[in-house]
Formats: sequence, structure tokens, C-alpha cells
Amino acid sequence: MHIPLDRGSETPLYRQIEMFIRQCILSGSLATNTRLPAIRQLSRDLGVNRITIENAYAALEADNLVYSRVGSGTYVLKHEPLPPLPRAVPGAPWPLWQKEIQARSIAIRSQVPAEILATSKHPDLINFAEGIGDSQLFPSDDFRKVIQSIMRRDGITALEYGDRRGYSPLRSTISHVLATQGIQVHADNILITAGSQQAISLVAHLILSPGDVVLVESPTYSGVLNMFHLFGFKIVGVPVDQSGLQVEKLENILQLHHPKLIYTIPNFQNPTGTCLSGPRRHMLITLADRYNIPILEDDFVGDLRYEGKAQPALKALDPGGRVLYVSTFSKMLMPGLRVGFLIADGPVYDELLKLKGVNDLATSSLIQRALEAYVTVGRYQAHLRRTSVIYRRRRDAMAQAIYHYLPARVNTHIPYGGLFFWVQLPDYLSSEELLALASKEGVVFAPGLSFFPHGFEDACCFRLNFVSNPPERIEEGIRRLGIAIRKLENSQ
Amino acid sequence: MHIPLDRGSETPLYRQIEMFIRQCILSGSLATNTRLPAIRQLSRDLGVNRITIENAYAALEADNLVYSRVGSGTYVLKHEPLPPLPRAVPGAPWPLWQKEIQARSIAIRSQVPAEILATSKHPDLINFAEGIGDSQLFPSDDFRKVIQSIMRRDGITALEYGDRRGYSPLRSTISHVLATQGIQVHADNILITAGSQQAISLVAHLILSPGDVVLVESPTYSGVLNMFHLFGFKIVGVPVDQSGLQVEKLENILQLHHPKLIYTIPNFQNPTGTCLSGPRRHMLITLADRYNIPILEDDFVGDLRYEGKAQPALKALDPGGRVLYVSTFSKMLMPGLRVGFLIADGPVYDELLKLKGVNDLATSSLIQRALEAYVTVGRYQAHLRRTSVIYRRRRDAMAQAIYHYLPARVNTHIPYGGLFFWVQLPDYLSSEELLALASKEGVVFAPGLSFFPHGFEDACCFRLNFVSNPPERIEEGIRRLGIAIRKLENSQ
Repeated sequence: MHIPLDRGSETPLYRQIEMFIRQCILSGSLATNTRLPAIRQLSRDLGVNRITIENAYAALEADNLVYSRVGSGTYVLKHEPLPPLPRAVPGAPWPLWQKEIQARSIAIRSQVPAEILATSKHPDLINFAEGIGDSQLFPSDDFRKVIQSIMRRDGITALEYGDRRGYSPLRSTISHVLATQGIQVHADNILITAGSQQAISLVAHLILSPGDVVLVESPTYSGVLNMFHLFGFKIVGVPVDQSGLQVEKLENILQLHHPKLIYTIPNFQNPTGTCLSGPRRHMLITLADRYNIPILEDDFVGDLRYEGKAQPALKALDPGGRVLYVSTFSKMLMPGLRVGFLIADGPVYDELLKLKGVNDLATSSLIQRALEAYVTVGRYQAHLRRTSVIYRRRRDAMAQAIYHYLPARVNTHIPYGGLFFWVQLPDYLSSEELLALASKEGVVFAPGLSFFPHGFEDACCFRLNFVSNPPERIEEGIRRLGIAIRKLENSQ
Repeated sequence: MHIPLDRGSETPLYRQIEMFIRQCILSGSLATNTRLPAIRQLSRDLGVNRITIENAYAALEADNLVYSRVGSGTYVLKHEPLPPLPRAVPGAPWPLWQKEIQARSIAIRSQVPAEILATSKHPDLINFAEGIGDSQLFPSDDFRKVIQSIMRRDGITALEYGDRRGYSPLRSTISHVLATQGIQVHADNILITAGSQQAISLVAHLILSPGDVVLVESPTYSGVLNMFHLFGFKIVGVPVDQSGLQVEKLENILQLHHPKLIYTIPNFQNPTGTCLSGPRRHMLITLADRYNIPILEDDFVGDLRYEGKAQPALKALDPGGRVLYVSTFSKMLMPGLRVGFLIADGPVYDELLKLKGVNDLATSSLIQRALEAYVTVGRYQAHLRRTSVIYRRRRDAMAQAIYHYLPARVNTHIPYGGLFFWVQLPDYLSSEELLALASKEGVVFAPGLSFFPHGFEDACCFRLNFVSNPPERIEEGIRRLGIAIRKLENSQ
């Protein structure tokens, strides 16, 4: 077979050979079942490497133009049309496997029902429902400059995968910050995650299987309730009072339910704003030790304290490997950064690292580097102090407004830190019904139901975010809320 | 009780009251079991709101300084020491639950064993083992400018949570890019994820439970094998030839194993570099339809084609809701960006969105915005063209070097795109043993074992990344590899 080859061409020789034979087959000049020249023969004829011919034939075979028989050679294949595809029928049902997934679908509870926001036509809605800080205070301009200087400093490295545990200087910085809070942790026991949400989901995946029991505060953070629910865990709630999780009730529950994990928010709990008392912290650690149960401590806003003395973190009381600790910079800084972290001692760390790796390989290296630079130069601490002063004033403004505008039958406590007031209506009123009225008056909040595990619902509670609006908006919002509560009472 | 109050102070009244009583208790001037004044009484005496007193008492109760009896009043509590904690004993064993997790630990297979890299003392190691593009070509400077302008343009919004499905303009842009590749998809069916790794893990979590069977190509991407292994799935491999997954063998396997998912990389497969032929694509879709099995199509470098015509994506042949498609910008651009995406039609989309939400809430908004701007102004496309030209030359350089320096008994095929050569040693040689020798010569690669599901290992294969080094380094690396192969042969 004579094949013209251009040895000066950009096109590799095997491709020139392949394209020539392809043309012969498609044009019909090489008929079905014609035997192609033997590889050894053709490589000699054309003066090229044997592997060049092999690659040309393999490419033709890959496109179903030839087939090879071991020990016999390569033959032109009958040029057949593509096999028919299943037809796309407009309006046809989804495949069965999709319907099965749909059938076991679980509803996610949101803090403010979408339809409430959609139907409120109020031109100037005041939102107390959010779970985050005031975005107007986020140091976005500072942060832009830090990112800029990091990209200049680190160039490409800032955009590569980096250490799977997280950017090492950031882990060191976190260990120093935690030391000032009484938590002694080596940087190698810190795992950087995509927000604390991912940290919690890694722990949940590692420790629990569907059907296992997990203990939570009742009420607790709805994002974690949704997660545990979606993962198929059995959620058992332990009531909360003014001193946090009622640890005294725990031992009975441990013996009855044999939970695999205790999830707790000991500081400025979401949604109740309470802190776990010192004696209860000691009891909780003792019980976790005695009953061989890991504690997952979520310290989402522990550093947002406006007064009073902090109790030691559960992690600081941990005699060794009993407590997994998660926290985040997101709430304070910018939620969109998606950087949180997890602390774990013992063999469990490596297992969490593996899970993190298969889940998303690693967390954005650029943002970690920027955050490290920002914290190291003290800007984070300064921002925290500034923000705390502002948030404290807003808390006091909301407390004042609650006393002034809400009926005395409405009950609440003033939190020492964090983001939330937890408010209790008289028990014949429903916070869901109140929300519908309030949204018409121009104010929304997070009704209580979404914070309770199933079967523990308490409809008369709701959560107010006191940090996300300036004082005059807070006063106006609570005034509107007072009107809505009186309307609800009158309608009963 | 007389409590001096400073109404002009920054300290709220309830705090002043609380601090006063606290002092009295701690100093002993209020003895254990003393009854505090009734709330109504004290509020009248001090001329403050009832809730102010309640809050002061609640704060004292939270710190275990007082207790209240319903209907009776609030009493000073005996000031007791904290209950004892379990002691931290140096060298004590980890808790039992940690040992149990450790006992069911699964080894993760890495592409280049850490000890190989650690023990190679070669001063100028050439690395063909990586799974990504050449970081020197990443457009980091361009990207820095884009991030800068996005942060100026969007301010705070760029750092907030954003749409849980992903930044809407980025989803639109992706849908336009995919349309040019024959995939018709609405932006609402796109879900932005933290790299394609997260997209695959969401699909795996939603569709499979531990013990379920998943079909993969054998060999395939080790990162996904590790994931499926860690999640407890039974992995069944289907062999790959020059035309990709051997779909002809699939029907028997489907009937025998009843898999819940088929995971496939139809373009420039990792690690073999092969493309699934057109007829096999049709057959695969037909079988998935007939046997009610979802296909997970991983198109990690489909747009890195150096020659030849692309086959339609499986997603483009999907009659509706049969194929889940994942891809990424990471391989081409910057792996550290961690932005990938997933396409799903039908009810399965909402379920994947929920899982994404509980896993990490959302993907970094800032990086999504920057990526969208970068792609929209055509820089991504220009970068892709430039990179393809460079990568193609490197592929040709490696092909030349393989013909020139490796013995003819070593077998490979030239890929039309992607990142990898897949090389077969004569079957009496082991790529693991070769790696040990090669690292001493100053070159490393990814040995074959980590790419095979358990029980399907083929020790004589290995993977070479041809894009991550310039041509002269490629030639030198392959020259060293040739020396190592001859040493290995002589040692047998």
C-alpha cells in the first residue's frame, strides 16, 4: 500500500496514515473485509516505526472502521449506521430510578417560608430572620486588598491544590487564636473545611450510619437538623433552659437511646442564645466519657461575647479525643468565604481527612491564604472588637424595644453574646400565624418550628436576629411586631 | 433590697442588678437559701420593668448562683465546687468509639506512594505522576485582575452566600458553552459544586447506599475509586479497550450484579486516554434506559482535544433524565479554584440541591463571579486554545521520546487529547518495581494499581502526564525511564 507521507508536517505520521486509510474506507475504495497490510510489512514499506502503524490501526478500530483478529490481521469493517437510540418523547415520565428517589424525598424546613417573603407586598420589609451578621459591616474592601496582595505574593501557588488538611500557616494561626481561648491544639489536628457546615457533615458521615441515633439540643440549628434528617439519622432532642442543654436529663436518654453522637452549641446557642453553665460542661464531659459517646461542639459565634466571662470550651475540658470541635470565620466575616475548621485528636482525624479528600479534595487555597494574612496582621481581631461594640448596642436597642412595644405576656431573655433573641409567645399563640400577620406589617422573623426535632415542636417560640439591622430599624421592626401580636391576640 | 442603679450608664439595668446580687452572694453577704425579693416587688422598688429583674435573676441562675422554685421564689444556692472531670492521663488509650472507627478504616491509594517521593534523593526529579495541567500556564495574573474588578464591582454581595444552585450568570454562561458542544441544558438544571469531585460525591450519596453495586471502567480515576470504596459501595469494573468502556460486555454484568449507577469518563479517559466510540455511546444509552440505571458522565477534560472530531456527549444523547453530567474548570485553569458543575434533569436535581445545601451550604460566591467574568469576556476560550497548542506539542514530544528511548516491548497509544499516556510493560514486569528504580533515576509516574478496582489489578501498566512538563524535560524524563526499564529487565 502506498501512502504519501509528509515528514515535515505538524501532523504526526500515524495520523497521516490513519487519515489516508480512513478516506479509502469511507470512499469505498477499500471494500468491507479487505485485509489491511500487516503492521510489520507496512512499517518496512513506509520506513516508519511499527508503533506508528499500530497507532494508526488502533485509531481506525476505535472509530469502528476496521476490526482485528488475533494472529490473522486487520480487516475493513462493514460501514454500519449507528444503533438506534431510545427516543426522547416530550412529556414522557422520568425514569423509574428518578421516581424512586423522588418517592423517598424529605422536605427541608426553611427558616422563613418562601411564600411568606413572596406574598408580603410591604415596600420596606424589616428582616429579623437571618442567621448571619450584618453584611454592611463585612470588611470587604480590606479583604479585597488582602486578596490582591496574596495573589501578587504567591502567584500560581495560591491557585493550586495545596495541603489537603488546609493551608499550614492558617492552621498555625488558628491554633494560636484558640490557645488564647484555653484550647490547646496542634496545627496538625486542625482540618480546614468549606464552612462549619462541611465540618459537621464530615463528622456525621464518619460516625453515624442511617438509622443511628444522634442527640441534639431542642431547639437547635435548623441547618444541622435538616442534614441529620436527610442523612437518615434518628434525632432525639434534649430540652434547653437558661443554662443551656439540660445535662441532668441526659443520662436517662443515653441509657434509653444509645446515641452515637451528641451535637451541641454551648455558646450563644442557635436559636435560644443561651450558654451552657460551667457545672453542666463538666457533667457533659463526664457522661460522654462514661458512655463512650463523642461530642460534636459547634462554637459558631463563641467569640461574639458582649459581656460576662466565657466558660471554657468543652474541647478545653476534653481529657483526650472525646470532643470534636468545629468553628468558622464565616459568621463574623463574610459567609461567602466558606472557610471553617474542625479539631480532632486521635485516629479519627485521619479518617475525617480521607472523607474530606473524597468529598471535595480540598478547600479553596486562595481564600485560605487571604484569611490567614488578614487574621495575622490583627485586622480580624480589630474587626471583631469593632463589630462587638456595634452588635452590643443593637442587642440593647432590641431589648429596649421589646420591653416597650411587646405585651408583657411575651417572654424573652437578654443574651450575653451571639446573634439572637429567642422569644416566647403565650402558649395559645402560634409563631407561624404571627409571621403571616407580621409580614403584612413589614417585619419577618424565624418561626420556632424549624428549630425543633420532629415530635418536639413548640409553636409559640420564634427567633429574632438583633445584629443585622441598625438600632432605628430594630425599633421600628419591633414596633411593627407588637402591632402584629396584638392583632393576632384579638383574632383568637 | 436597695440596689444603686446608674441610668446613664452603658451597662444595661438588668446587668447592674445582676452584678450587685452576684457580688453579695460571692462575698457571703447573701447566705445560702436566702430568698431573693419577689420579682414584682423588686421591680416596683427599683422602678424598672419586671422583665429586667427576670433577666437579672435568669443570668444568676445560668451561673448556678441561685435556683428558683415555681410558685415559691428564687433562692441563693450553696456555692459548690465544679464536679470533677475525667482526668487526662498522658499515654492513655483513645476512647473506644475512636478505636472502632480506626478498626474499620480503609486505606486510600495514592498515585505516587509518599515514601517513593520521600526516599528519592534525586536533585532534579521529573514528575509525570500528576493529574492536572501545567501550573505555569495557569492565567493567574489575568485572574487576579478579574477578582479585583469583581470585588470593586460587586462589593459585599460577592462575599455573601448567594444562590444555593450557584451564581446565576455563571450557570447561564455554562449553558451557552455546553450548547456549542451539543448539550442543550437550561441554567436551572446546572448545580455549581466545589470541583467535580463534590459533584460526584453528591450523586454517589443520593443514588447509592453502602453495599450497593456501582459499575466503573477498569482502570478508572483513582479519586473516585477511593470515594466509592470509602462510602462502602461494591465496585465492579468493566474493561476498557481502545474505544473506551467495552459496552458489549455490559449487558451480562447488568444482569448479574444489578448495579445502581454506571460511572464513566467517555472522553480522554483517566488513566487510559481513550474515547468511547460513537456506536458504544448509543449502546450505553440504550442499556441504561432498558435496565433503568443512571449514568454518571465525568467529562473532566473533554474540551482539551488536540485533533480529530468529538463524539457527542452521553448527555447530548440522553432521551431525558438518564444521564447526570459533571465537569469542571479546574483541570484547565487552576485546581485551587474548586469550581465544578453538575447537570441533572428531573426530580433528581432538587434532591442533589438539598444534599449540596446540607453538605456545605454553597460554593464560594467570589470565585464563581470571577470565573463567570473570565469566561464571558472570552479569556477562557483564548486560554483553552493557547493551552491546547502547547499541550499537543508536548504530547508529540512524549510520543517521539517513547519511540526513541523505550524498548519496543513497551506498548502505548497516542491519545487525541487530555493529559495522559497509558503505558503497558511486558506482563512479567511490575510498574511498582519500575517506579522504585525510576525514582532513583530521577523520574516518577503513576503506577497502574491505584486505578483498578480491587480484584482487577493489572500491575504492568502505568500513567504518564504529558502536559505538566516542557518538551525538553519530557525527553529527558522518558530517557531516564528507558534506563530504569532496562535495569528492571536485567534484574529479572
